[in-house]
Amino acid sequence: MASSLRVVLSIARGRIPSLPVPPHYRTVTVRALSSGLSPPSKAVVYDQHGQPDQVTRVIDVPPIEIKENDVCVKMLAAPINPSDINRIEGVYPVRPLVPAVGGYEGVGEIYALGSSVRKLSVGDWVIPSPPSFGTWQTYIVKEEGLWHKVDKDVPLEYAATVTVNPLTALRMLEDFVKLKEGDAIVQNGATSLVGQCIIQLAHIRGIRSINIIRDRAGSEDVKGRLTQLGADAVFTEKQLEVKNVKELLAGVPEPALGFNCVGGNAASLVLKFLRQGGTMVTYGGMAKKPVTVSTSSFIFKDLALRGFWLQKWMSSERAKECREMIDYLLGLVCDGKFRYEMELIPFHDFDTALDKALGKLGSQPKQVLIF
Amino acid sequence: MASSLRVVLSIARGRIPSLPVPPHYRTVTVRALSSGLSPPSKAVVYDQHGQPDQVTRVIDVPPIEIKENDVCVKMLAAPINPSDINRIEGVYPVRPLVPAVGGYEGVGEIYALGSSVRKLSVGDWVIPSPPSFGTWQTYIVKEEGLWHKVDKDVPLEYAATVTVNPLTALRMLEDFVKLKEGDAIVQNGATSLVGQCIIQLAHIRGIRSINIIRDRAGSEDVKGRLTQLGADAVFTEKQLEVKNVKELLAGVPEPALGFNCVGGNAASLVLKFLRQGGTMVTYGGMAKKPVTVSTSSFIFKDLALRGFWLQKWMSSERAKECREMIDYLLGLVCDGKFRYEMELIPFHDFDTALDKALGKLGSQPKQVLIF
Repeated sequence: MASSLRVVLSIARGRIPSLPVPPHYRTVTVRALSSGLSPPSKAVVYDQHGQPDQVTRVIDVPPIEIKENDVCVKMLAAPINPSDINRIEGVYPVRPLVPAVGGYEGVGEIYALGSSVRKLSVGDWVIPSPPSFGTWQTYIVKEEGLWHKVDKDVPLEYAATVTVNPLTALRMLEDFVKLKEGDAIVQNGATSLVGQCIIQLAHIRGIRSINIIRDRAGSEDVKGRLTQLGADAVFTEKQLEVKNVKELLAGVPEPALGFNCVGGNAASLVLKFLRQGGTMVTYGGMAKKPVTVSTSSFIFKDLALRGFWLQKWMSSERAKECREMIDYLLGLVCDGKFRYEMELIPFHDFDTALDKALGKLGSQPKQVLIF
Repeated sequence: MASSLRVVLSIARGRIPSLPVPPHYRTVTVRALSSGLSPPSKAVVYDQHGQPDQVTRVIDVPPIEIKENDVCVKMLAAPINPSDINRIEGVYPVRPLVPAVGGYEGVGEIYALGSSVRKLSVGDWVIPSPPSFGTWQTYIVKEEGLWHKVDKDVPLEYAATVTVNPLTALRMLEDFVKLKEGDAIVQNGATSLVGQCIIQLAHIRGIRSINIIRDRAGSEDVKGRLTQLGADAVFTEKQLEVKNVKELLAGVPEPALGFNCVGGNAASLVLKFLRQGGTMVTYGGMAKKPVTVSTSSFIFKDLALRGFWLQKWMSSERAKECREMIDYLLGLVCDGKFRYEMELIPFHDFDTALDKALGKLGSQPKQVLIF
């Protein structure tokens, strides 16, 4: 199949204002460029699974063909998520075939279009939706249907990170327990990006949040920041070494729903807060420790334990629903109702960003690569 | 309120055939016995919570008043269930007020009726339904509505034990996962009374069962007995010390539903067998060890962990449904389709029965006291 470009590439870079192009001219351009190619690209690849700081390297990728339904996107920003790390390590159930480019979500600007692309324009900001492998590179070519246009008023780091973590938070608040205004949730790992999202999305719906954080220097400062996001209660694990954690609740009702992204003792603390018949949803295991539950928690307290994995949720026929949720979340960002901590770091400093994401430099905010 | 008896007690013992009594005569009798009393009774009581073999004793209970809606039942048989032990120990969430009579289910024969009782007759076999405290005694007086008449063709030890364990098995097969013919379940503690019931009730519905038992002398014999009940596969825990337990299944499908009454490693084995998206229901903790679950079991295998407690299930408005299930189960017994191992032991040997129920004399079948 012959591929083609609909607009001249230098215009598509978006560095100069793009002008309306008469339809007949677009057609001519298409015919003229029968085998359009992407620009050469730089990418973070790994040839084998293993320690991310040992197996990843930045390589030059030669130009690739842009087919008629393809869109070539110049990436603007992409985060390093824990699941990206796990994919490189090879411990994720879906193992990318190596060699593979790292990264799973991000945002870019359309650089060039295949001849049959009609719904997107050069200069649009788009995100891969559903997200997919290989966002840690400067140019990406994928079919039109795999890109979702987003509002350019959104700060690019939010467009880059909206899919994996905020969507997880949104779905977990919806899919397990029917919550109504005034109800409460409890979570550990409250400073994680999902944790920050849960606090705010719950707050928007009038749902109270009880938040558990690690004991470490600066925990009072962390409490202040989470409270500013809308947290109703924040406790360090040490503060919860009491006989009855519920006595600490002071007006916040017993939660019917809990979230665990840590495991070990931090998961047990979530279970302690849950009310009779409550549900705990596990979506991460930062402490690399299992969840341990007493028999009586199941029988007499009637607790239910579940898990959530966004990638599985999205694998069903939910593309449209996902995009609506993304638009909703980015709308909240634009309205100033939704924010989370990130550190923007240039792509050429990838090694530093990776070290921070790996926790080698202590606790750090989400690392977002800027291309 | 004046209490009364409708028939002469010596007739009510059922030792001689009861004759039709003209209505006017019944009325006369009622008036004549304005304060009917039960016979004196013997009961196993405990004055404080603690070790059952230390805090229980057999006492003489004086006759008590039989009010107009009451039914006086001469108990025939009552089992010693693990939950009876837990109630005496005081580790059950519903703590009977002490002093209390032990036992929770059983069967008896109606000995005398209050004057307003219409639906039951002297000589009928009845079980307390819903079950309630205090079946370890020779005579019990309770309101008519608390007794459910059962067919006298049923072996009395089945009528005595049908409520707690078989009902648990039946509900757990119904309430968590919609199973269809050809599906499979997995369970540990397969030799327990509930375990034996699950095997047979699953088999009747065309559901395959994978059963896990302890390693101990005679396990081959146990396998044979469970297979005779309808078990499709029986493994000792040691046999399951393999990399992939599912390779042992040989034609039995991966189970969608698992049952755990042990905890610890035996619970982990149930989880290993479960298919993607499967559910494990905990209803006991014989090993007194918690359930430990990896993070990935929740996230990637999408397992759900739940609990079941019959007493809570019955506490809702389910009296009628319970009795229908009891009739169904006792019907299966009469048809020769449903059986389980029990040891009948005279009430005067209560101490021995208790020692056996406490596991002091090794593995023993369910102990059923015969009065």
